[in-house]
Amino acid sequence: MKELLLTTSIFCASAFGLAAFAQRMSMDIITPKEVRQYFSPITQKVADNPENPVTPQKVDLGKMLFHDPRLSKTGNMSCNTCHNLTNYGILNIPKEIGNKGQIGIYNIPTVYNVAFNTVILWEARFKNVEEQANRPILNPIQGAMPNGEAVVKLIESIPGYRELFAKAFPTENKPITFENVSKAIAAFERTLITPSRFDKFLEGDEKALTQEEKRGLRLFVDKGCIACHNGIGVGGGMFQKMGIVKPYNSTSPSKGRYDVTKKPEDMYVFKVPSLRNVERTYPYFHDGQVWSLEEAVRIMADIQLGLQLKDDEVKAIVAFLRSLTGEIPMDALTLPVLPASTKDTPKPSLD
Amino acid sequence: MKELLLTTSIFCASAFGLAAFAQRMSMDIITPKEVRQYFSPITQKVADNPENPVTPQKVDLGKMLFHDPRLSKTGNMSCNTCHNLTNYGILNIPKEIGNKGQIGIYNIPTVYNVAFNTVILWEARFKNVEEQANRPILNPIQGAMPNGEAVVKLIESIPGYRELFAKAFPTENKPITFENVSKAIAAFERTLITPSRFDKFLEGDEKALTQEEKRGLRLFVDKGCIACHNGIGVGGGMFQKMGIVKPYNSTSPSKGRYDVTKKPEDMYVFKVPSLRNVERTYPYFHDGQVWSLEEAVRIMADIQLGLQLKDDEVKAIVAFLRSLTGEIPMDALTLPVLPASTKDTPKPSLD
Repeated sequence: MKELLLTTSIFCASAFGLAAFAQRMSMDIITPKEVRQYFSPITQKVADNPENPVTPQKVDLGKMLFHDPRLSKTGNMSCNTCHNLTNYGILNIPKEIGNKGQIGIYNIPTVYNVAFNTVILWEARFKNVEEQANRPILNPIQGAMPNGEAVVKLIESIPGYRELFAKAFPTENKPITFENVSKAIAAFERTLITPSRFDKFLEGDEKALTQEEKRGLRLFVDKGCIACHNGIGVGGGMFQKMGIVKPYNSTSPSKGRYDVTKKPEDMYVFKVPSLRNVERTYPYFHDGQVWSLEEAVRIMADIQLGLQLKDDEVKAIVAFLRSLTGEIPMDALTLPVLPASTKDTPKPSLD
Repeated sequence: MKELLLTTSIFCASAFGLAAFAQRMSMDIITPKEVRQYFSPITQKVADNPENPVTPQKVDLGKMLFHDPRLSKTGNMSCNTCHNLTNYGILNIPKEIGNKGQIGIYNIPTVYNVAFNTVILWEARFKNVEEQANRPILNPIQGAMPNGEAVVKLIESIPGYRELFAKAFPTENKPITFENVSKAIAAFERTLITPSRFDKFLEGDEKALTQEEKRGLRLFVDKGCIACHNGIGVGGGMFQKMGIVKPYNSTSPSKGRYDVTKKPEDMYVFKVPSLRNVERTYPYFHDGQVWSLEEAVRIMADIQLGLQLKDDEVKAIVAFLRSLTGEIPMDALTLPVLPASTKDTPKPSLD
């Protein structure tokens, strides 16, 4: 690719003269048409899933469940506790802090645009948000609820939820199920979409990115970052070994997918994260040990691609990555009022 | 009062006949005019303080600070973590759960309508929200930040905050101070006002309350609850011994104001809480050990007034108390987007 570009550039310089060459280099470092091979723009407000259609009723319910601390054993943690929607869907801390202050082994991934991912969680356990969204409720260092039945019992004790589940799953005889908790939260997450200037560029607006950002995108393509960070999420669509060329010195004991599959080839294989909003989702990597985006880019090039980037290359790539910072939809920033408990609602427990 | 009412009732019955008496009992159990002696309606959208005027700039800033988990040592707790605005400004847990999962000695008081309080915190440490709002940031079991200077340093490292503080405190040379953090959060809290049907009644709309609710209000007045729960907050304006007539068996080691003053007369003296939204701010009392509003009413009558309430009296008083559940303002339910950190922003610490 690099060679091809160089040859093409030399051809252009010969054929049209230096002025035209300079113009090409400054104006057309990279075109929307070219990068549409690697990326898709966000054109929709909702990342729909035909198997879990996003309806306003399901989204309203999912938003409440997302914000409800009663869905944790100690009654003080909701999805939003870690996936803080005011803060690009994360906390700026290296590892998750959960139930009773326990510290997890992973950096918190954002919920914004997670619905575009086809690989969910760092250890790549799930294929979509429907499979994943109810799991943290039971994870012992997160929600720590004993089981799905306890969650269903809690929700059934709340008349407001009974009504909302009936509306969200109108054709079902028993709408309150642990699976439907996941479906509702997932439907809400499917609205957490943040288009950015990069999408305008992908759609053909060449002025949506600055020259420096385009140069960064050019480097992002040519250096090989796109091998993993591609698609609508600029990542989030595959898993990959962390440390292909050189080993990564992690602060996390996680062995990635190996922890799930126990296959040697899965050792240190992790989800490739989406880079949308990466400017705001520091610190970086599955162990959250790197705080600077510049440093993260440099490390990735080094251990994944065997490349030592120059300072100006890092600067340009970071400029491009900042163009992925999107606009948070108002609906994500509008809180619901939670429905009231009753005397039958199980109490939180500190045991 | 009770005797007077009875005498008056008998007089009415004699003078105007039984039909008129029945009508008085059913229609005019209590009038807005009478209860305006004890309570004031919420008529404003903002509980202003001339010493900290509420401006849109200050409210915007205060809301961000209220939601910002970076204002805690571990980076995972904001004011909203405990004072959950989707859930009437509290968590439904008996005692606060703070930094590193530490459990406090107090039930979480709501931030809705707290600006009307002239006595703040259970041990009645402060007179207004301006005095109080920045304190949890430093409390070792809450935000656990080392000191106000550390908070100022953190905020100064964030360009978005530098701009917002300059706008919120436009006449000050050094707008970022720990005191101004409190003023901004307090200004936001001064907008967390929830008028209810009771306010409509106080303003003269006799139909705003049902007959049962009016009967409850009559009992609330006649039994003596209003001795402490009065004013615009229906409480929140004084402190009082918990257990005037009989001792209260608490699950909290707190000795109330005694813990602050060390004066024997302050033993077990606590803030009288505002009863606005009391239906939704369970569990009850400073130790959060009582989950049922019926039981809370019964215990209060017993240990504070020496009264054994009948079931139907409890029911009516609870009906009245439910009329204090107010409408949460949309602005309180609209999240801000937090400003970005920089490389100079101090990192959270788990030490």
